[in-house]
Amino acid sequence: MKLVCLDLEGVLVPEIWINFAADTGIDELKKTTRDEPDYDKLMNYRLKILDAHGLKLSDIQRVIGEMNPLEGAKEFMDELKSKTQVIILSDTFDQFAQPLMRKLDWPTLFCNTLEVDGSGRITGYRLRQKDGKRKAVESFHAMGLKVVASGDSYNDLSMIKKADAGILFTPPESIVTENPDIPVAINYTELMGEIDKALERISNES
Amino acid sequence: MKLVCLDLEGVLVPEIWINFAADTGIDELKKTTRDEPDYDKLMNYRLKILDAHGLKLSDIQRVIGEMNPLEGAKEFMDELKSKTQVIILSDTFDQFAQPLMRKLDWPTLFCNTLEVDGSGRITGYRLRQKDGKRKAVESFHAMGLKVVASGDSYNDLSMIKKADAGILFTPPESIVTENPDIPVAINYTELMGEIDKALERISNES
Repeated sequence: MKLVCLDLEGVLVPEIWINFAADTGIDELKKTTRDEPDYDKLMNYRLKILDAHGLKLSDIQRVIGEMNPLEGAKEFMDELKSKTQVIILSDTFDQFAQPLMRKLDWPTLFCNTLEVDGSGRITGYRLRQKDGKRKAVESFHAMGLKVVASGDSYNDLSMIKKADAGILFTPPESIVTENPDIPVAINYTELMGEIDKALERISNES
Repeated sequence: MKLVCLDLEGVLVPEIWINFAADTGIDELKKTTRDEPDYDKLMNYRLKILDAHGLKLSDIQRVIGEMNPLEGAKEFMDELKSKTQVIILSDTFDQFAQPLMRKLDWPTLFCNTLEVDGSGRITGYRLRQKDGKRKAVESFHAMGLKVVASGDSYNDLSMIKKADAGILFTPPESIVTENPDIPVAINYTELMGEIDKALERISNES
């Protein structure tokens, strides 16, 4: 039995924080892990800014609700789900992803969770686990599943390397140079082609 | 992050072998684990009968393609997927389930796999793993997920008991008597109500 694990942001939907910053015009929210590599510091900084602007979860979901999956993502997912099992592994929060998941017909998503109080204010966040993408692949292996994984950036590499087959999707040039052995796809047609090849190959291995 | 694990046959779709036997009029295929408790013996017996009738995978899929999910199952799944993550854990085979999964909009399914040769003849089968439902719940726990599980029969009990919350769906009376502590739902409205209660309860536990 085989499973395809996909990253979410940059693969199926736009980068949520960056688009949220652009949509709301709150420049401070453009900061990413490149500016602040400590994720916990970055998240607490973001939550403070949301608070300062009086933005509650429902306000944020309304803005995200106007975003759309990347062009062709829905058709890609529809085809992929009809040929194999798919789970999305993401570092985002389920409450942020929800409006976009609806537009992708609710694929299964494992990600993190925001803590929200009774008034709808975001008070904190809860990681599913540290290095959750890699550990998910390990757990799928423990279930007897073979895994094909694809993502676009550095935080996907441990998942891609742990999987039985990995594919980079529209990655930055630096990742490609540093990982010349990982196949690269730059659009959904190529990604489907690489997934098909990988599924075929890991079937024959067993 | 929370996940609902559902059994397939008897919960979302009819019993596939029993309906296949009825549809094709092949009485020998009505044998179940009640008649032959050794699953491997039973499956090899079934495959021999399919062969004797010259039934290839495509013939079987055509018959299964005329079956439908249980009444209300699609609407139940649509609602459930919009509120939480869902994975179906089943002892069936992905190639058998496929025509029914299409009618449920391709929910994620972990099950077993038939071995099929180049001519489409079913030559054997491959279990994902022994006691796969219980082990899947253990692996989801290892991923930092809390699990609500529901199924209708004895082979679901280990999954239900391992989960953070379990619900029996239209079970035989004997299971209810032997497991008075597990809540019982007899239709989708009740099942959704029990799942809602369970999701709420396990959220508060963490």
